[in-house]
Amino acid sequence: MEEYKINEERLWNSLMDLAQIGALPEKQGVTRLSLSEADLEGRKFLIQLMKDCGLHVRIDKVGNIIGKLEGCDNQAPIVMTGSHIDTVYEGGKFDGTLGVLGALEAVRTIKEKEIRLTHSIEVVSFTDEEGTRFGTGYIGSKGMVGKLDESYFRLQDDLGTSYEEAFLQANLNPSEFEKARKQRGQIKAFIEMHIEQGKVLEDHDVPIGIVTNIQGPIWLEVAIQGSADHAGATPMNIRNDASLAMAEIMLQVESIAKEFDGVGTVGKLKVEPGGVNIIPGKAVFTIDLRHGDIVIRSKMVEKMYEAVEVACRKRGAKATIEVKKDVAPAKCSDELIKVLVKSCSEAKVVPYKLPCGAGHDSLLLSEITDIAMIFVRSKHGISHNPKEWSSKEDCAKGTQVLLQTLLHLAK
Amino acid sequence: MEEYKINEERLWNSLMDLAQIGALPEKQGVTRLSLSEADLEGRKFLIQLMKDCGLHVRIDKVGNIIGKLEGCDNQAPIVMTGSHIDTVYEGGKFDGTLGVLGALEAVRTIKEKEIRLTHSIEVVSFTDEEGTRFGTGYIGSKGMVGKLDESYFRLQDDLGTSYEEAFLQANLNPSEFEKARKQRGQIKAFIEMHIEQGKVLEDHDVPIGIVTNIQGPIWLEVAIQGSADHAGATPMNIRNDASLAMAEIMLQVESIAKEFDGVGTVGKLKVEPGGVNIIPGKAVFTIDLRHGDIVIRSKMVEKMYEAVEVACRKRGAKATIEVKKDVAPAKCSDELIKVLVKSCSEAKVVPYKLPCGAGHDSLLLSEITDIAMIFVRSKHGISHNPKEWSSKEDCAKGTQVLLQTLLHLAK
Repeated sequence: MEEYKINEERLWNSLMDLAQIGALPEKQGVTRLSLSEADLEGRKFLIQLMKDCGLHVRIDKVGNIIGKLEGCDNQAPIVMTGSHIDTVYEGGKFDGTLGVLGALEAVRTIKEKEIRLTHSIEVVSFTDEEGTRFGTGYIGSKGMVGKLDESYFRLQDDLGTSYEEAFLQANLNPSEFEKARKQRGQIKAFIEMHIEQGKVLEDHDVPIGIVTNIQGPIWLEVAIQGSADHAGATPMNIRNDASLAMAEIMLQVESIAKEFDGVGTVGKLKVEPGGVNIIPGKAVFTIDLRHGDIVIRSKMVEKMYEAVEVACRKRGAKATIEVKKDVAPAKCSDELIKVLVKSCSEAKVVPYKLPCGAGHDSLLLSEITDIAMIFVRSKHGISHNPKEWSSKEDCAKGTQVLLQTLLHLAK
Repeated sequence: MEEYKINEERLWNSLMDLAQIGALPEKQGVTRLSLSEADLEGRKFLIQLMKDCGLHVRIDKVGNIIGKLEGCDNQAPIVMTGSHIDTVYEGGKFDGTLGVLGALEAVRTIKEKEIRLTHSIEVVSFTDEEGTRFGTGYIGSKGMVGKLDESYFRLQDDLGTSYEEAFLQANLNPSEFEKARKQRGQIKAFIEMHIEQGKVLEDHDVPIGIVTNIQGPIWLEVAIQGSADHAGATPMNIRNDASLAMAEIMLQVESIAKEFDGVGTVGKLKVEPGGVNIIPGKAVFTIDLRHGDIVIRSKMVEKMYEAVEVACRKRGAKATIEVKKDVAPAKCSDELIKVLVKSCSEAKVVPYKLPCGAGHDSLLLSEITDIAMIFVRSKHGISHNPKEWSSKEDCAKGTQVLLQTLLHLAK
């Protein structure tokens, strides 16, 4: 594959320019909640940039912004790439935006170099990936894969504005959302570049990662009932301390995650009544379990239920477990991973493979097409924070890998 | 020792009568916060009852109500017995009151049977044991042993009434509190009967316990700093999860307490930031450690510090430990325990020995005299609650043991 270099400066400038829209006054960060005034301004900026790149721009019926570079065969399935430009409250400059502006830079390079491709390429910015404003995310990608329904439009933000009103304010017709749906076969592949939001690449001193799978989370809420007794007057051997059952389960979460090479976290917990000198009679906590393989994740969950049972029986306590969330994991396409490996080598980047623990629009897109993800190293693994940072060089390397990949897929 | 039987019905009636004062309208419980209107009425009731028993009644300078049965030798040190009649908010009928009314029943029996004793016996009801109203307790016993100072009188209750004002309303002169102080040598022994507030007697199916020591608590507050990372994007082997260090320490609290035959409890804990999908970067929790022997308790504390250090090092976290409370434990007098064992056998009660985990006025009295405690079985170990319950028979058995003890000590 002949080498066409993306323009590192132009990419960086576009990232910094977009970060001015919704910029926090004294911090490094950005607040561009979906379909807010700042987001609408960001969307205008993006549309203009797409037009400047010579793309044909359209907004689909759920507000996804799509810039198309026409290929020679307009019957051939689309190669799609992109991410989102909405942010969380006081978020960073890179989460989402790198995937959109990097894709745009790659396509701009193709256009500039007048490379003829068979497949059309679409750069997409999905509506409301973060879900910060209305409490639920992936609206654009859900709409595209047919996972949206009317109930979403009744969601309200903190000011009481409904999703329906937000759509209307953005010149979108909420009653037409079903028209955004694409069918399997229409998209050849979806490639999403994104910052890692973790420390794995940094720890391994590599700039770019190839995602093997997206680890969908299952969230359990465990409530343990023991008995609340006086901490002084109750000897150790007649206690039913709910918090100690919890402590054992917390350590089991860790060992089960390690055993199955997944991740497991107890992030939220409380004990009652919560007095210094009262043995906790109740403990309530969450367990977040993730694995790229749904079969293995089921085994983890099964072992977890057993561990809860064992810990409680030992202490004369009782537990209830409730599943609060269950997102199936998605495998990235082996074929696409091969293409990414080749593209890395062309871009002179080590092809480092890793699983992805966070959710992304690509997880939804996997419902209707093959997906792949390119990760770019995050400083200290920080994201959703003004301190979020990826270097200019790393952003450029990821974008170069994306360009090579698009050339392979659309040729 | 000749057998003199206390009057079970009279004792029970006095308990139930006092429980009418400050009784909760629909519950079984009582609210008689120290020096409140209900408590002042309860104090009047007690004073009248003492007078009816033929005792000489005086109020000392910190409001302790003292009823005296004169012995033959008015130079001999006093045998003192009693407890308190104030309650917590929505407390029970037995905590404290059993120790006062049981002592009164025992002394009344001595008086009725016209038993001549060498030592005078004083039945005392200490002011504000519970500390519920002004946030700090043991005011009467602190005053008696010289551990009170002016600062206590500036404490305020929830309505802004100061302790000074409460004293004045009860016809007490707050500036004279130092005159309540007794010196070592004036009191031969202090015997406190109290409900157990635990389940040890119930579990061992015995009505009465002889306390070996009062386990003073040390309270530690541990703060662990790890790093808060994304639960999906951070593999298990690069985490610094503060909550897992906490979980290990919680289990260590249990094993250290068991190893040294003391008690240890983590009753209060929190993790931050507290999101389901965020690894806790911070964990703050309390450790309550108790043992009857201060030397052994120090060893427990030392081991605890080591355990915190080990757990944190393992997970790349850092801990700070703050001592929030440190009450020295008190040993009950071996001589008095022997007398109690003999008295139990005279009362046909198994002399079951156990440590006491909660604080009592006797803990303060141990500063100036030998102490002993008689425990009476608590149903389900519940106290500080309207459901607090000890049976009529058990209350009578404890009082019979107390009578035998007083006869031995005052003879």
